[in-house]
Amino acid sequence: MKKFMNTAETMVAESVEGFVRAHEAFVVFGPERRCIRRRHLTPGKVALISGGGAGHEPMHIGFVGHGMLDAACVGHIFTSPTPGQIIAAIEETDTGAGCLLVVKNYDGDLMNFEMAIEMAGDRHSLDMVVVSDDIETSKIGEGRGRRGVAGTLVVMTLSALKQLGEGLNTRIRSMGVALNGVTVPQTERTTFSLGPDEMEIGVGIHGEPGHARQPFAASDAIIGHLCQTIAGDIAAAPGAKALLFVNGLGGTPPAELYLAYNGARRFIEERGIPIERSLVGTYVTSLDMQGLSVTLALLTDEEIALWDAPVATAALHWP
Amino acid sequence: MKKFMNTAETMVAESVEGFVRAHEAFVVFGPERRCIRRRHLTPGKVALISGGGAGHEPMHIGFVGHGMLDAACVGHIFTSPTPGQIIAAIEETDTGAGCLLVVKNYDGDLMNFEMAIEMAGDRHSLDMVVVSDDIETSKIGEGRGRRGVAGTLVVMTLSALKQLGEGLNTRIRSMGVALNGVTVPQTERTTFSLGPDEMEIGVGIHGEPGHARQPFAASDAIIGHLCQTIAGDIAAAPGAKALLFVNGLGGTPPAELYLAYNGARRFIEERGIPIERSLVGTYVTSLDMQGLSVTLALLTDEEIALWDAPVATAALHWP
Repeated sequence: MKKFMNTAETMVAESVEGFVRAHEAFVVFGPERRCIRRRHLTPGKVALISGGGAGHEPMHIGFVGHGMLDAACVGHIFTSPTPGQIIAAIEETDTGAGCLLVVKNYDGDLMNFEMAIEMAGDRHSLDMVVVSDDIETSKIGEGRGRRGVAGTLVVMTLSALKQLGEGLNTRIRSMGVALNGVTVPQTERTTFSLGPDEMEIGVGIHGEPGHARQPFAASDAIIGHLCQTIAGDIAAAPGAKALLFVNGLGGTPPAELYLAYNGARRFIEERGIPIERSLVGTYVTSLDMQGLSVTLALLTDEEIALWDAPVATAALHWP
Repeated sequence: MKKFMNTAETMVAESVEGFVRAHEAFVVFGPERRCIRRRHLTPGKVALISGGGAGHEPMHIGFVGHGMLDAACVGHIFTSPTPGQIIAAIEETDTGAGCLLVVKNYDGDLMNFEMAIEMAGDRHSLDMVVVSDDIETSKIGEGRGRRGVAGTLVVMTLSALKQLGEGLNTRIRSMGVALNGVTVPQTERTTFSLGPDEMEIGVGIHGEPGHARQPFAASDAIIGHLCQTIAGDIAAAPGAKALLFVNGLGGTPPAELYLAYNGARRFIEERGIPIERSLVGTYVTSLDMQGLSVTLALLTDEEIALWDAPVATAALHWP
């Protein structure tokens, strides 16, 4: 296991400290380093809070800043932040309008975010959006079981409220592929291992194995399979507009992501869905996994306008 | 060799096409796809042009846009663009004030950019800055032999003229480390191979081996060695201000880059050099190499102001 780290115990803390020092213009530590929050809060705005295990950087801390999150909590690797951390984020960022918590659909995250709401709900106005865009751990079509993965980013960027988030969540699908398993530093356990000519289709971002191990193939064949599954699980009405997001899982270089995007875009557009917005890069990782995920989000004109709204964070910045 | 690609022959073209489609707001293809240029040129501005082999993405095409490059040319993997490509970029972007070519210090690049200047110099006002920030292929201190690597980015961002670029080039040093060699798709040759407990210190961005193969170590030990070599090769006058840049070589996840940055920042600041600006991310790659480079640039106040000037490109965007 070759990783740039000193000890498994201090890995997350040192990485987050590096992040905060590199992006002092956007973020500061909350008290006792229990959360990362925006340097400048906007009084009267609903605070957006997210978080989850470490190992997915730049998610979530990379999206703290103007136009996206007000705070993010980082747990141990692949482990939810504690209710105490989430409450600290609430107390740090609630300027009177309450907080919306953006939570990925995992038992540990749900439990701890719900517990924080229960414990702080008498003093703060709180609500929660659960993101479940990932197709593959569930049977296709059963929305309740889907994990939240790269689509989380789209919901957060739209910096909007529960209703908007929940509506959007029904129109986002993601699916991933990995060319290798990853080793979790603290346990030194490998999540799964693949031969030199194998790939794993439908992986999660915590190294959950996918639904099929297949022989490695040309990019267009892999991407075609992902896009076909996604397109088959999402109802695109005529006139639908889409955001296409190709996300690197940690060990995949930009050149390969752009090549994959090129194939995905062709595939989706050939099915009559115009791509109005795009995102290509390493935004939601699974440690150093070599692999990628494809996310398709069907957006209304209002949602596209929200996506275009200015953001200034460590990991995303526009216009 | 597991890479997201279809054929080795079409890999670069498909990846660049995906890039252009994903970033249509910033860039368009030049005629016959010989270069990538800014969608909106600024008449009367000196055009900045760079380029080099593919396999280093997002460099160079990711830096085409407002405040950085006006055009970039992409060669085959690890191979210079042709003089014809460079001349096409000159003709596309010269709006009357001439062009400054930003070239990395490799024989192939130098030869082709010089040839382009010779061939187009009667019709255009042209000059060239050669970037040579990399410490390790040369003996330390012999500036003329140093390769241009991640420091190229700093020169380009300062969006300034030959003099500025050449002055800055004397005050930038980079050094890299790799945890694995990479396989070049077309040749299927591995640049070098490392055992599970080895690392290569002082690598180049085309898979050139470094000056020493060492046992893999804790991040602070690796980063300390890089920083010490860099600090020993660059004269920091009292009052010097620095930009610290930790760059991923293609297969290194953000969490590890931030951890490495944390160590590098501590090391440099302990030596009395305040870090005024930071950059952490995957900007200059060597295919899917697991590894990183550290770049230190000593800047004047004027240069810091230029660094802070607005940029809007696919790979960098601020304020």
